[in-house]
Amino acid sequence: MNDAGKITSLHILDAASRIAPHINKTPVLTSQTINRLLNAEIFFKCENFQKVGAFKARGATNAVLSMNKEQLLRGVATHSSGNHAQALSWAASLVNTRAYIVMPENSSKVKVAAVKDYGGIITFCEPTLIARETTLDRILQETGATEIHPYNNEQIIAGQATAALELIREIPGLDIVMAPVGGGGLLSGTSLSVKYFLPNGKVIAVEPEQANDAYLSFTSGNFIPSLNPDTIADGLRTSLGSITFPIILAHVYQILTVSEESIVRSMRYLWERLKIVVETSSAVPFAALAEGKADVTGKRIGIIISGGNADLDDLPWIKNE
Amino acid sequence: MNDAGKITSLHILDAASRIAPHINKTPVLTSQTINRLLNAEIFFKCENFQKVGAFKARGATNAVLSMNKEQLLRGVATHSSGNHAQALSWAASLVNTRAYIVMPENSSKVKVAAVKDYGGIITFCEPTLIARETTLDRILQETGATEIHPYNNEQIIAGQATAALELIREIPGLDIVMAPVGGGGLLSGTSLSVKYFLPNGKVIAVEPEQANDAYLSFTSGNFIPSLNPDTIADGLRTSLGSITFPIILAHVYQILTVSEESIVRSMRYLWERLKIVVETSSAVPFAALAEGKADVTGKRIGIIISGGNADLDDLPWIKNE
Repeated sequence: MNDAGKITSLHILDAASRIAPHINKTPVLTSQTINRLLNAEIFFKCENFQKVGAFKARGATNAVLSMNKEQLLRGVATHSSGNHAQALSWAASLVNTRAYIVMPENSSKVKVAAVKDYGGIITFCEPTLIARETTLDRILQETGATEIHPYNNEQIIAGQATAALELIREIPGLDIVMAPVGGGGLLSGTSLSVKYFLPNGKVIAVEPEQANDAYLSFTSGNFIPSLNPDTIADGLRTSLGSITFPIILAHVYQILTVSEESIVRSMRYLWERLKIVVETSSAVPFAALAEGKADVTGKRIGIIISGGNADLDDLPWIKNE
Repeated sequence: MNDAGKITSLHILDAASRIAPHINKTPVLTSQTINRLLNAEIFFKCENFQKVGAFKARGATNAVLSMNKEQLLRGVATHSSGNHAQALSWAASLVNTRAYIVMPENSSKVKVAAVKDYGGIITFCEPTLIARETTLDRILQETGATEIHPYNNEQIIAGQATAALELIREIPGLDIVMAPVGGGGLLSGTSLSVKYFLPNGKVIAVEPEQANDAYLSFTSGNFIPSLNPDTIADGLRTSLGSITFPIILAHVYQILTVSEESIVRSMRYLWERLKIVVETSSAVPFAALAEGKADVTGKRIGIIISGGNADLDDLPWIKNE
């Protein structure tokens, strides 16, 4: 295996063409106040405006549009309590196939309702990884559906890579592209797009200190999974995968970590300054800049805002009654 | 006086050229979910992404860029506790002139800090209209500054009109353009842009039931001011002016009113679906559609989202501790 797995520049360009009729070309926002604060030019690629409210729509769409007729008759399946569940349900509806979603029984009502809204067929299970995997295995056997893993899947990675591709096309001369890292689907895709389409650019990833498996794996060179990570950035609790880790090791320049407090403060700051709703995970890269963890003076930096599915009734900077 | 006051299509086009280097060309957002819900096509013109977070930057910029050298030496002045205070302070800084802002002493700390950040010179006064006007008169006499009224001013109206002009240019074939109405600067400007640039289009304005002076004035044909209106939409508490009212009477198709509950629900819904931060006043036009107060089936409707300066620590759908 070469250091990009099987994913070439053509795979990413093909994914971009394939998904273009279905997804949003999301806007890039800037703020003079933020640029003055950091003495740099920051370009926010707003995947919170993507279909289903997150970049996950890109990978899921690429995956379902790459399936053959026989596979489409049998459907797709995954276990997820987050944005991938919604994205896969929505993408499956585009091609009139079924999406079987295994969700832990303690999933939030909002997320269960969203998956149902998009037409996903939900099977609840106990809230453990083993129960999720066992339940998914049973469904795969019963239905013959194709498993679409949330990140450890080359079609997913090529799809997520199209966000950085769009950003690189729209904003010339970026020095750095930043993304959050959880399972590494977005980050590995971003690092491949930078390798192929912005060869002088660097990728800096950011992770919560309290879910720092990617940081530990990256700095040691050995895969070190997270054990029950406890971070408010719920999209970043997963550990890297066997496909995403080698790509990240080869093509990412640096992984930084940030505190919980700084994630919340940065989330609120982005809402206030950019007037956009972003979820906790999306605030993680900016938090590293706000904390001064990377010297970006005079640089042009693209930041991928990963999603906007925040719980508007429970904001981390407001204490509810 | 003709029914457009002194404001011709050329005034609006000149304003657009004059302010273009300084303001944001704001994006137009859509939502398939909202379109399906209303069985119509809704185009949200996002002035929450405008400089200082509101359309007010347009009028203020047009006003200061229309001043002569002598006037610029002496500065500008207004009384305002809202977005106009920030907009005028910011616009004044563009042309290196002073902005004297009279603010009631009970203004929120956030708004006072924002005006200071933009370089405004604040004079506090008692929180009554008479104290505001008296204090402003004294400052005008002492400084020789030019008063820039928040809405009853033709340069301001021509500036606000450029938001609808941009929307009409970007989205062809609109049937209806909607805007909230407070003092009527945005609405009168919007109605003139529709008259000149979208002659088959209709303008529908929306106002809180609890601040329904524009509705009463419009339906009776006589100016009826609001007395101490109590609405959560703080940008819409002001009454129409002597310049804005005749324009609105001549060129607006309909004024609708909405309940407080519906404003809050619509605000939250726009945050959730569009992933944007909008202030209470911005939710008012959509609230009329959500309440079914206008039949828009099959129509193409532009809605001007007026601003995004919401208090993130005090959201009306969350009960704080």
